[in-house]
Parts: sequence; C-alpha cells; structure tokens
Amino acid sequence: VYPDPLRNAIDELGRLPGIGPKNAARLAFHLLLKTSNEDATRFADAIVQMKAQTTFCPVCCSVAANGELCGICADDRRDPSMICVVQDPRDLVVMERSGTFAGRYHVLHGGLSPLEGIGPDQLRIAELEARCRGGVVDEVILCTNPNVEGDTTALYLAKVLGPLVAKVTKIASGVPVGGDLEYADEMTIGRAFEGRRDLEA
Amino acid sequence: VYPDPLRNAIDELGRLPGIGPKNAARLAFHLLLKTSNEDATRFADAIVQMKAQTTFCPVCCSVAANGELCGICADDRRDPSMICVVQDPRDLVVMERSGTFAGRYHVLHGGLSPLEGIGPDQLRIAELEARCRGGVVDEVILCTNPNVEGDTTALYLAKVLGPLVAKVTKIASGVPVGGDLEYADEMTIGRAFEGRRDLEA
Repeated sequence: VYPDPLRNAIDELGRLPGIGPKNAARLAFHLLLKTSNEDATRFADAIVQMKAQTTFCPVCCSVAANGELCGICADDRRDPSMICVVQDPRDLVVMERSGTFAGRYHVLHGGLSPLEGIGPDQLRIAELEARCRGGVVDEVILCTNPNVEGDTTALYLAKVLGPLVAKVTKIASGVPVGGDLEYADEMTIGRAFEGRRDLEA
Repeated sequence: VYPDPLRNAIDELGRLPGIGPKNAARLAFHLLLKTSNEDATRFADAIVQMKAQTTFCPVCCSVAANGELCGICADDRRDPSMICVVQDPRDLVVMERSGTFAGRYHVLHGGLSPLEGIGPDQLRIAELEARCRGGVVDEVILCTNPNVEGDTTALYLAKVLGPLVAKVTKIASGVPVGGDLEYADEMTIGRAFEGRRDLEA
C-alpha cells in the first residue's frame, strides 16, 4: 500500500532494537509528515556523522571522538589509581551520574559468555591488564552486571588482575534503596544477607 | 561524558515521538557499535530518500511516490463509486488489512479540533468535496476515529457532503469482536445499544 521509499524507511526503522513494525510506521510518518526536510536531513546526518567521527578511547575503550581521549581519561583531576570496570559505555554514564566515583574507567564491551562464544579475547581485557601492569593502579572496582554473565566476568578478572594490583573489589549486591523488601527476589535477598555489614552506633 | 557526535545522534533520536533519552542512547549505541557503516548509511539514506521521493496522492491525498498516483487510486479494479474517508494514512492500511472494502479512499490528514485551531481548511476536505462533485461517487463511508475529534469531523462531513452524494454513512461503533463485555466502557456500551440491529433468524 505504501510507496517504496516510505516502505523502505519503515523497514530500516523497524530494524532498530525494540522498534516493532507499527512503531516503525509511526516514526516514519512522523519524519515524513511532521518533520521539515532540514530536520530530517539533520537527523540522518547525525547518524552518519556519529559513525564517522566516533571511535574508542585508546586508554579506557569507552567511546571518544576520533583521535582523542574520552572526556574522563583526558581529565587530569580524575584519580588514575582507581579503575572502575564496566561492561558497557552506558553503565559508565550511570556510575558518573551517581557522582560517587572520581577515578578512571575501563569498558569491556560485553561480558564473558562461553555459550555465546564470548571469551576473554572478545572483550577489552588485554587493554585492562596492560593498564594494571603500569604500576599506577592500586584498586580495580568491578562493576559488572549482577547476573551470571557479569559475575563470571568479575570472577575471571579477579583471578587475572589479582597479581597485578593491590586490591580488586566488586560493588555490593543487595536490596535497592527505596525498594520494598516484599518485592525483592530470593537471589537479591541472599546476596544482601551475605553482604551484611556491622552497624556502627 | 559522550563525545559530541554521539551526543548529537542521541539528541536527534530522542526527538522522535515516544523515544525517551534512555531509549535514544540505546538506539544510538546500537547504530554505533552493532551496525556496520554500510547499514548505518543505508538507514540514514532511507530517511532522506523517503523525504525526497514521497508526496501526497493527487486524488486521495494518501502518501504516494513523487508524481504518481497511490497504489489504490492507480488500481482500476477498485470501485470509484465508494469513498472511505480516514484521518490518517495508517488508518487506510488498517482498513485494507481487514479486506472488507474494495472502493477508493480519501485521507483527511487529521480531524477537526477547534481548540487546536484545526478547521476544515487545515484538512483535505476541499479535495474530498471536489471528488464528490464529480458525479461518480455514490457513497461516502466515514471512518474517522471514534472520539470527539473524529465524531465532530464526521458530523461536519455529513453536512457538507450530504447534498453532493446519494449516501453518507459512518462505520459502526460498538463492542470490539473478541473483547469482553465486562471491560467495555460506558460510552462504547451506549453506542453498541444505539447501533443494535435486528437479528434475522
């Protein structure tokens, strides 16, 4: 029913993760009927420019503008003796937003998953080891996802990095702040028990 | 935290309707890290090409390739004596999918809404009147949305088109097929009562 260029745009939008066919049509019609030519071109350009001008930071493997360090690695005020390891660049943003960490980061770009054929060589682990061998890093804080993949990755990294740095730690699992104990699952409660701490009066 | 070209792409994706900031970041990272340069360029091109090559059908005002009739207006087998009026090109697709209508369409591109300043001149009503004056059309079936805007539009069109064609009808409102009466709202039940029909034994 739709002319080819429109159907083509709907197909391409429908390839994006989490965008079903109806949503893709809605987005295409928005771009077609409610967006100026300039705005639509700027939208398309933004994608092409992002692909052309973004790469990985040569130090922490997060995203960075071509030929540059990422904003955090370029910032001298960040403590180089602590590295927070995350699986995904978006996790880094979550950490930054919490405002609790003033060190550097390392982005693995995934987690170990033998079933999916993702071993240490598929992740940015060699780069992390090289950084830990430099003698500057005291503590590596593993902030992998609290699931099987993330825990496997954390265990592996603890083994590999243990001999290289003074301390390898992992962020706490437990009941989320503001949550309701009634709705916490058994695994989370179990972890929260294990990770209990002395209350100082 | 993100380099400018990436932040820019996230901003542009976040301008799409129903795409929040987190979702926009997810889509941008998908295009950045999981999509080849060719695929991303094809995605961007599809948007630009759609804008450049799609326009309105000169007859029914639905979407059509530049300089062409839409597929339905170009199809001689479609009955020109019946026009189904819809508010949006996507409504036309819904009608087509039901497979119950073999006539032509007319797309208004909206509904009357005095509060939002949308009067008859902002919709494709003049084109519809011209078609009805041609002497070919016997019946106009109003398939506007079953809400205040759509009902207002239908009433207005019935008044304007009544003198021009033999019959102006409106699709039935009532309880949706496969639905459960228990969950139907009062308005729908009310309409379903009003629209009750004799059962032929």
